[in-house]
Amino acid sequence: MITRKKTKQVFVGDVPIGGGAPVVIQSMTNTLTTDVKGTVRQIRELEEEGCDVVRVAVPDADSVKALPGIIKKIGIPLIADIHFDAKLAIASIEQGAAKIRINPGNMKKSELTELAKIARRRKVPIRIGVNSGSLEKHILKKYGNPTAEALTESAVEMTAVFEDVGFTDMVISVKSEDVLTTIEAYRLLSRQVRYPLHIGVTEAGTLLRGSVASSAACGILLSEGIGDTIRISLTDHPRFEVRTARFLLESLKLRRPGARVFSCPTCARTEIDIIKLANAVETLTAGIDRDITIAVMGCLVNGPGEMRGADFGICGLKGKAALYKAGRFVRNVSPKEAARELLREIRSGV
Amino acid sequence: MITRKKTKQVFVGDVPIGGGAPVVIQSMTNTLTTDVKGTVRQIRELEEEGCDVVRVAVPDADSVKALPGIIKKIGIPLIADIHFDAKLAIASIEQGAAKIRINPGNMKKSELTELAKIARRRKVPIRIGVNSGSLEKHILKKYGNPTAEALTESAVEMTAVFEDVGFTDMVISVKSEDVLTTIEAYRLLSRQVRYPLHIGVTEAGTLLRGSVASSAACGILLSEGIGDTIRISLTDHPRFEVRTARFLLESLKLRRPGARVFSCPTCARTEIDIIKLANAVETLTAGIDRDITIAVMGCLVNGPGEMRGADFGICGLKGKAALYKAGRFVRNVSPKEAARELLREIRSGV
Repeated sequence: MITRKKTKQVFVGDVPIGGGAPVVIQSMTNTLTTDVKGTVRQIRELEEEGCDVVRVAVPDADSVKALPGIIKKIGIPLIADIHFDAKLAIASIEQGAAKIRINPGNMKKSELTELAKIARRRKVPIRIGVNSGSLEKHILKKYGNPTAEALTESAVEMTAVFEDVGFTDMVISVKSEDVLTTIEAYRLLSRQVRYPLHIGVTEAGTLLRGSVASSAACGILLSEGIGDTIRISLTDHPRFEVRTARFLLESLKLRRPGARVFSCPTCARTEIDIIKLANAVETLTAGIDRDITIAVMGCLVNGPGEMRGADFGICGLKGKAALYKAGRFVRNVSPKEAARELLREIRSGV
Repeated sequence: MITRKKTKQVFVGDVPIGGGAPVVIQSMTNTLTTDVKGTVRQIRELEEEGCDVVRVAVPDADSVKALPGIIKKIGIPLIADIHFDAKLAIASIEQGAAKIRINPGNMKKSELTELAKIARRRKVPIRIGVNSGSLEKHILKKYGNPTAEALTESAVEMTAVFEDVGFTDMVISVKSEDVLTTIEAYRLLSRQVRYPLHIGVTEAGTLLRGSVASSAACGILLSEGIGDTIRISLTDHPRFEVRTARFLLESLKLRRPGARVFSCPTCARTEIDIIKLANAVETLTAGIDRDITIAVMGCLVNGPGEMRGADFGICGLKGKAALYKAGRFVRNVSPKEAARELLREIRSGV
């Protein structure tokens, strides 16, 4: 099992980040924030998918005004993502944002004192979100490139600005679009600060490329105990960001309870349509909130062995599917009915 | 950069595995091996996708007979996957298989001497592929469960059988469907043997779940220098296995040359359809065989910064797309034409 590094705990609304709390999954809407209806609809879908806190971009005063209408219709805390203008951050707190994300690369330090005071009074945490694409000029000049050291120095410098006015409810991120740089930056950072860390790869890419790069980077960091909240950045619908984060945490046993479906890759030995069946089982069991393992296997090579180890299972045979429960054969069913029959077995208890 | 552990080198046809060779990508067909035409078609698609060696299941004599017809029509070495019957392995070598995969969990050691002799004479390597679902009874009895130690012991015991007759062209795998067990097993194994290691998670699951779990497990192992060949097991078309492996190696800078597209996750700030554009750029640049980075960004927050660091870039603005080359602005184009215009810039050289 993974031993997580000890960090300070902060609260985003009622959701704790750091200090031993489960890794918090977050995502970001890609609707216009001023489109309250569309944004609420997307956030609700993300909640269903397993998102714990959600971020929306707040690029202007109209977006600030939209926040209360969004917040009152969603079930998870909202984070306002602010660039360039500290006044938008202050206004977002006043309109109910549960956390603020700022970017040290495009914020004047002199404008942050007021924000820090209000955030402290309202108990609203702030993420210092450093990105390789928007590093401060004086740091970029010092290091030449957005190296791991450069990203980390930018973040740590910014924490000092807030600490100077007694504000310490910070979360930090140091994202690069380069996986190895990202890993190195977080390793450096976690040795230097005790604030909770928000992990992720920036501009990771399209669905498969981005989820692969993010799983590698965040998987490596999480396995070292680094990471208190996670956002998988994908150039696709944000539901996939949440799903990828969930799958990653599950695979590392850092997840909340739920069904875990493992399934064989199919080969010339497979006698029934395992791809369809495994996907059907995954969809049907997505809502289960207790810890169970389900094996969906295509033949007798690894099938019986996996059936022994799983709470429930389907082993494909010639033209039929054998259902298993607690390692024992239950009955044969037709492949078409196998997913639903399995669900029936699961509902009737282990 | 990742420092890879030193292993012995073996050859699968003309493809070296281990001993510092680039990590070899493999996949496995899910057509019937006796369907020569369908199998050849699938293997050719895998080659296009970046597969270095391909495995086919050989469950019976008819499948053995199909091998020569497949081998003469494909451009990459073929591995015969054998369970239960060592005679099928011997027959597969005689029919031209460039490597054999056997499973110690279902092979009698006494039947392997003949196989070892023929493999040695024909210079055909053998993979000892241990899976959590098909562990030998005596090992399972000793450990109770398919633990990391159990998987490793099964593999190491089997190497001794081959070493006793002077055969050492082995590749080893110790796969569990559990990510943490898989990682631990390979760590143990890499301390005990110098044979090249084939890494992967068995029964990892459906496309997204499986690629996430596999990227976490293999990403962690590769970052520690472990792994000479990789197979991502997915319950989906094998093209996605190859694509996932490729993306993973690229993200860890263990890849062959090629274009790497990073792209932003889009948000309320995005003014043009970046999801569509990033996917189009990825598709159009898939065949490029020199190392270039391409940034596809949706707005001015991180856009200009990423343009500076990438060889080529597209930055989305209001109703138009700005093309960049070597960090400098080239011209604005319509979003619809941006992917093709970028390709034109790439073809005209950096």
